[in-house]
Amino acid sequence: MVERVCVVGGGVIGSLFAGHLASVCEVSVLTRRREHATALNAEGLRVSGKSERQAPVVASDDPRELPDPDVAIVATKANDLRHALAMLAGRYREATIVTVQNGLGAEEIVREHGPWPIVSGVTFMSGTRHSDTHVEYILDTETWLGPYEDTPFERVQEIADTIVASGLKAEALPDLRPAQWSKLIFNAAVNSVAALTGLPHDPHFSAEEEPTDLGHLVHGLIDEGKAVAQAAGIELHDDPWEMNVLATRRGSAHYPSMLEDVEARRPTEIDLITGSLVREAERHEVPVPLSRAMVALVKGREAAA
Amino acid sequence: MVERVCVVGGGVIGSLFAGHLASVCEVSVLTRRREHATALNAEGLRVSGKSERQAPVVASDDPRELPDPDVAIVATKANDLRHALAMLAGRYREATIVTVQNGLGAEEIVREHGPWPIVSGVTFMSGTRHSDTHVEYILDTETWLGPYEDTPFERVQEIADTIVASGLKAEALPDLRPAQWSKLIFNAAVNSVAALTGLPHDPHFSAEEEPTDLGHLVHGLIDEGKAVAQAAGIELHDDPWEMNVLATRRGSAHYPSMLEDVEARRPTEIDLITGSLVREAERHEVPVPLSRAMVALVKGREAAA
Repeated sequence: MVERVCVVGGGVIGSLFAGHLASVCEVSVLTRRREHATALNAEGLRVSGKSERQAPVVASDDPRELPDPDVAIVATKANDLRHALAMLAGRYREATIVTVQNGLGAEEIVREHGPWPIVSGVTFMSGTRHSDTHVEYILDTETWLGPYEDTPFERVQEIADTIVASGLKAEALPDLRPAQWSKLIFNAAVNSVAALTGLPHDPHFSAEEEPTDLGHLVHGLIDEGKAVAQAAGIELHDDPWEMNVLATRRGSAHYPSMLEDVEARRPTEIDLITGSLVREAERHEVPVPLSRAMVALVKGREAAA
Repeated sequence: MVERVCVVGGGVIGSLFAGHLASVCEVSVLTRRREHATALNAEGLRVSGKSERQAPVVASDDPRELPDPDVAIVATKANDLRHALAMLAGRYREATIVTVQNGLGAEEIVREHGPWPIVSGVTFMSGTRHSDTHVEYILDTETWLGPYEDTPFERVQEIADTIVASGLKAEALPDLRPAQWSKLIFNAAVNSVAALTGLPHDPHFSAEEEPTDLGHLVHGLIDEGKAVAQAAGIELHDDPWEMNVLATRRGSAHYPSMLEDVEARRPTEIDLITGSLVREAERHEVPVPLSRAMVALVKGREAAA
């Protein structure tokens, strides 16, 4: 079992990992802001919603002040990944690094900063951050993990088992790419359409009755993504259109993070989500005019903010 | 020369026509709201900006209270056109009706309501409405007029001459469709991109240096529009891409009306602008995936409002 975990990044996903893992191992949190670390050291981390936890954690904005972990879960937004890894470079030599960023390519960025073994992750869980020390666990869906390069599968399994023991859902897969790409294609379509329309992920996204219904566009974007996956030799784990239809029928409409970013006039992850799909399409010479349009529009929206 | 003009609709374009034409003929204004008519009867209509006018006008929300005109300029938004024409049906029997709506098909809607001679118009002028009785004239660009069905060209010329005599810019063209389509293709791209990004019509719309620059999308939309025009047998009056480039270099960025509508959470003219191009594309079996995407996104935005 894993004994010491460092969670890098205290956003929703990082807080959900830290708040649960503290019940089965020693957890440290590397934050971006010093005040955030101070609050966590004083109050601990509260989880409400799908589970209830009051977790003691050690936190700092300086990795030198934290114990050397066996596992570091890098749970920053994709945009903050390089900054976080620059702090870790040369440290945490015994750790396996777990990435859970949206999009593709987080593992390559980790590798640029050090020789750690890497585990690739995608997570479908979601929550709402109420304060620096309180996160609400909303969607109790799975985190999938897989080996990157020559990381042994046993290591992946051990990390997944620890996450499951902490009360979250996780699964170790021999090859993560089919799941990673399914989520990427789903996210590339749903997040960008939500950001541009202002709609949460609701039944408009799967409506295809009228010719101008939004589902046709979402379907077109997903079909472009599937063509790229096929050209890249990836057999998808789930069909992203079915993921979309199921999610829109779940009842309570989820607010995609890109919509939250746009409404808060923050930069979005468009370059790393839809953008990474467009770059893969270029590499494999697959035409993706709709996906390109979404990237240009969301970047235009950012420029207007 | 024209002696009595009724301007139907007291928005920006209607107010600009009424405020100028009152210096060369008798002008009445048919408003949607009774308070608007009351204010115009009491205070007249003030124009500032590119010209200065203080125009006496007769106004009402009931056409029976207004003198029978020689010319009725229907300057409502395309969405309000049917409502306005239902009020005119059976009246103003001696009048020629001038349409200046965005998109295609306003003339057909007029014809459904009565046998008046019709003059087709497109206007490039713009302004800002400061109050019910004050409009600022901002872009002093032209209005183009052309005959519809068998309206004699002399009638078109006479109306254009009256508009010019009033201090506005106008031109009579034997066939308006090339100009109407140029403006439609330009508007279909620029208005929808502005509505979705929140950007005024600024240099982003013609930027094509980086692969994700917005100009590529605007260019793609315009190319779709040009393919539809070609299939419909229309030779364009101006190249819509050149119109776009010139306009973005003009210095002060124009706020397209669809962006204003979206920001005010009003319904937009998407169905009548980009939507009318998509319907023409269907008729001529021209693929227009980007234009379809814009219609679906703007309608999604309306649904979220």
